[in-house]
Amino acid sequence: MIPLPKGFRFAAIHSGLRSEPNRLDLALIVSDRPAQAVGVFTQNRFRAAPVLLCQERLPSTQMRGIVICSGNANACTGEQGKQDAERMAELLAQSLKCSPEQVLVASTGVIGRPLPMEVMEKGIPNAFPLLSDNADSVHQAARAILTTDTRTKITYSTFTVPNSSHRETKSPGSLNDHSPEKGEKSTTTYTILGIAKGAAMIGPNMATMLGFILTDAPIAAQRLQPILQRAADRTFNCISVEGHTSTNDTVLLLANGLSTFSENSGTLIDSVVPGRGEISAAEEERFAREIEAVCQRLAHEIVADAEGGKHIIRLQVQGCRSFEEARTIAKTVANSALVKTAVYGADPNWGRFVSAAGYSSIPFDIHQLSLWLGVMKLFEKGMPLPFDAALASAYLKNHVEVTLRFQFGEGDADCTFYTSDLTPEYVHLNADYTT
Amino acid sequence: MIPLPKGFRFAAIHSGLRSEPNRLDLALIVSDRPAQAVGVFTQNRFRAAPVLLCQERLPSTQMRGIVICSGNANACTGEQGKQDAERMAELLAQSLKCSPEQVLVASTGVIGRPLPMEVMEKGIPNAFPLLSDNADSVHQAARAILTTDTRTKITYSTFTVPNSSHRETKSPGSLNDHSPEKGEKSTTTYTILGIAKGAAMIGPNMATMLGFILTDAPIAAQRLQPILQRAADRTFNCISVEGHTSTNDTVLLLANGLSTFSENSGTLIDSVVPGRGEISAAEEERFAREIEAVCQRLAHEIVADAEGGKHIIRLQVQGCRSFEEARTIAKTVANSALVKTAVYGADPNWGRFVSAAGYSSIPFDIHQLSLWLGVMKLFEKGMPLPFDAALASAYLKNHVEVTLRFQFGEGDADCTFYTSDLTPEYVHLNADYTT
Repeated sequence: MIPLPKGFRFAAIHSGLRSEPNRLDLALIVSDRPAQAVGVFTQNRFRAAPVLLCQERLPSTQMRGIVICSGNANACTGEQGKQDAERMAELLAQSLKCSPEQVLVASTGVIGRPLPMEVMEKGIPNAFPLLSDNADSVHQAARAILTTDTRTKITYSTFTVPNSSHRETKSPGSLNDHSPEKGEKSTTTYTILGIAKGAAMIGPNMATMLGFILTDAPIAAQRLQPILQRAADRTFNCISVEGHTSTNDTVLLLANGLSTFSENSGTLIDSVVPGRGEISAAEEERFAREIEAVCQRLAHEIVADAEGGKHIIRLQVQGCRSFEEARTIAKTVANSALVKTAVYGADPNWGRFVSAAGYSSIPFDIHQLSLWLGVMKLFEKGMPLPFDAALASAYLKNHVEVTLRFQFGEGDADCTFYTSDLTPEYVHLNADYTT
Repeated sequence: MIPLPKGFRFAAIHSGLRSEPNRLDLALIVSDRPAQAVGVFTQNRFRAAPVLLCQERLPSTQMRGIVICSGNANACTGEQGKQDAERMAELLAQSLKCSPEQVLVASTGVIGRPLPMEVMEKGIPNAFPLLSDNADSVHQAARAILTTDTRTKITYSTFTVPNSSHRETKSPGSLNDHSPEKGEKSTTTYTILGIAKGAAMIGPNMATMLGFILTDAPIAAQRLQPILQRAADRTFNCISVEGHTSTNDTVLLLANGLSTFSENSGTLIDSVVPGRGEISAAEEERFAREIEAVCQRLAHEIVADAEGGKHIIRLQVQGCRSFEEARTIAKTVANSALVKTAVYGADPNWGRFVSAAGYSSIPFDIHQLSLWLGVMKLFEKGMPLPFDAALASAYLKNHVEVTLRFQFGEGDADCTFYTSDLTPEYVHLNADYTT
């Protein structure tokens, strides 16, 4: 059973946005109390209307809900698209009895078609009564946001801290001093839930997908933003399918603080006041690690569900001057069709692998580069090694996830990047997909 | 019949470097007199031994010959590879009775295997007596340098200038004043011959292929370098197949000046002395245009022969702030697997086309962007237009070369870029290719 963060509810319905009968296409996520909220978004110049709306409203300390539709991206839809996204938020706000500014919107699907708003006008109020805080409603919401994905992408993390650690960040005499007495051995458990979609148009420049990270930890938006940005940089921005950055990439992180507050005081307050009742600096470090782990698992799930993919290619790029340089090299290798087809063909083609690294624009000493495929060293200090080609090919044939490790001699920074192989099925799927 | 530049001879043999019986795999190109020579080369950090050799020896005013082998790239072969490339040059120099430094080397084929030098030791002297200045020997040389190409790539240009224009750049009393008397209506014809290979591992950062441009025009290396660099930037660097920059990309330009000198004086001199006997500034402009045209036709031929390609995609990117920005956008669109598969599938998927432009890193106002497929406008000022999808699809189905035109509102610069579509055949070819 998935542990759910406190105070979040989920709903999904078939609104009729998709023509397939009964296919879920509209999801709602609601926080029972105003949540701290931040987001990271596509770097594409074409940003869909829901992306623009979220960017206007974030960061926020008062977020109550998210409306998500699949089947229509509401991208390249101009002024009408913006009004439609605003109306979607308004419809949920009416049911929630909050301000429209307290609602976010995300969409995914076909680009350039106006949203059929009559469907939304009915669908959002119809979905609202279904909101529920059980695992089944989470699964349904995760299914409703899929497009060409073959499976839902849900993950979570929980971690428990002794309550006494809260003291550290509190002002003396804080009005919101809900923590137990010093020395008391009570604990608080924080839960992080992550839901995502993505199977193609996956290129690593921000998230290239939709992701929703929900937590009951008490932490202010200003602290959340760098945590999410760093996590996205090292997870969602370290994957690719074909490297095409979408117009709708959105990862939202909502933290409602209900874990601490409900357990310790039973009282809801309007908002986390920075520095009061928030997680401590030491806890933040752990929290950030868990957020990154949740993002990493979702990112991995996306590559595992890559359109037509037969392999997950794990690129470990080590010994670089900086994470950014390591990522640039990894991304170049990941986006090489010759690398991807070699892996699909179970061909341990080290020449393609190292030459892809060679054209990434990052300078390096080729005489310091070594390369491993799995545990087999194929290339050492700029020169190929003799290796058992049949064994290397069998490794590629027999494993779904394969590792290519590049060891440079430039520094201590490294990056792990995931991509998929390029298969005839990918081409067929994308040649036949109708706009 | 191909017009050949004066004073160049060609030969090709099956040396045995390739195992297929009788497949040509070794070519020689020789200039009868020392030629001015320049080159442009791959930007890959991994530069093959022949690339390093050429870079050391160029620019040159004394170049006599080029040895080219196919089937083995002599890349990632370390110190031995460098010695082998040097030995190849030496073998031709021995036959030519010139210094080894007057010979260049180019190789293409499998990466990381030592050259079987016993094959070269015999092959180069055996090929030498076959050197000939007829069209048949050019065709054979063009065939000998191919790898996965399905056809040879040969083009040429000739242009004629009145001899009196030579005066302009001459010093009075020049020792080499071979031009006829002022007013005499004689003319000189210059011939440019271009030969190339390339079908995959084509990514636009320098030439990503082998190209040999030979001319009998009299022009010094110092003037040739910027002409070749500019031509390559706008032709070979404006094509891609899958965007993978090779380790061996080389374009060499040799100008032996024999057209002018042999016609006007019948005497050979050791070298073109800059400013003496060279083509004038006005002629240089024409010459540079013709060099670019020759490079353009070769570049186009490479894309037309792209592995598995069913379409040539011509990307016209217009209205940008600079050529470089236009090219960056074009290259991003060209390398999008979603764009390539849409064209293969005859899907007029403007959403993929404009969103690919949107993630190129070049900033632009999306509300100024319009897009045409052939003559059909699909997108205007940031918004899709209604269009006849069946007609647009028929355009893609029925044409081998299709045009996508992006009109930005940022400036006056533009770029034309060629790429191929992505087909299941491309994947099969590259998954099954054995290293």
